[in-house]
Amino acid sequence: MPRSPSAADEYKMVLVLRGELRLTAGKAAVQAAHAAVLLAEAIERRDPSAAAAWRRGGQKKIALVVPTLDDLQQLERVARARHIPTVWIDDAGLTEVAPGTRTCLGLGPARAADIDAVTGSLPLL
Amino acid sequence: MPRSPSAADEYKMVLVLRGELRLTAGKAAVQAAHAAVLLAEAIERRDPSAAAAWRRGGQKKIALVVPTLDDLQQLERVARARHIPTVWIDDAGLTEVAPGTRTCLGLGPARAADIDAVTGSLPLL
Repeated sequence: MPRSPSAADEYKMVLVLRGELRLTAGKAAVQAAHAAVLLAEAIERRDPSAAAAWRRGGQKKIALVVPTLDDLQQLERVARARHIPTVWIDDAGLTEVAPGTRTCLGLGPARAADIDAVTGSLPLL
Repeated sequence: MPRSPSAADEYKMVLVLRGELRLTAGKAAVQAAHAAVLLAEAIERRDPSAAAAWRRGGQKKIALVVPTLDDLQQLERVARARHIPTVWIDDAGLTEVAPGTRTCLGLGPARAADIDAVTGSLPLL
């Protein structure tokens, strides 16, 4: 589903889940939350003005999904090439998946236009 | 579903969604992520040793669900009485719910035994 265009100074964070794992809503929410906390900490350290812009905009976040790990890895390569911050979440695997399973890729916070160029065509989780 | 007992020095964060809103998995994940970022920031400011203990344990998070806003409000009162940190998430309401709708209550990070006493009987999201 295409989403509406973003303002030039809008920052957002994108949390991309790995669809093939068929995580429960609760498990997916926890993976997204892990990624969000790590990305928020990283942007504070590495780019405080981007962090401040993201906060001013209400700490926008969106959760999307891709089918496979290959899709997530490709997304990470494209994001890194565009200097968008990324973080991998590997689950401890006590319940739904094997230990160390890559469950989620977090992106941003980054300018919405930059992050939309990478993730704008992906479906919502 | 009862969960296994926790080690004495384990800290965790609990993200409780409001079931009656019937949020999509993606929307629920974003609400949980909002709560997690705010709680992580708050514990760093207010109780760095608790924050460090939570980090050492892998930043444990769990997502649970209660049926109604009343249930969430009662949970918040009980948690506050026990000095467990809390945060409300009110959605901006651009998509699935009306603006300002309370979607999620975040609790902790706190000692697992303390937080389990408040949320241990609630179902997983």
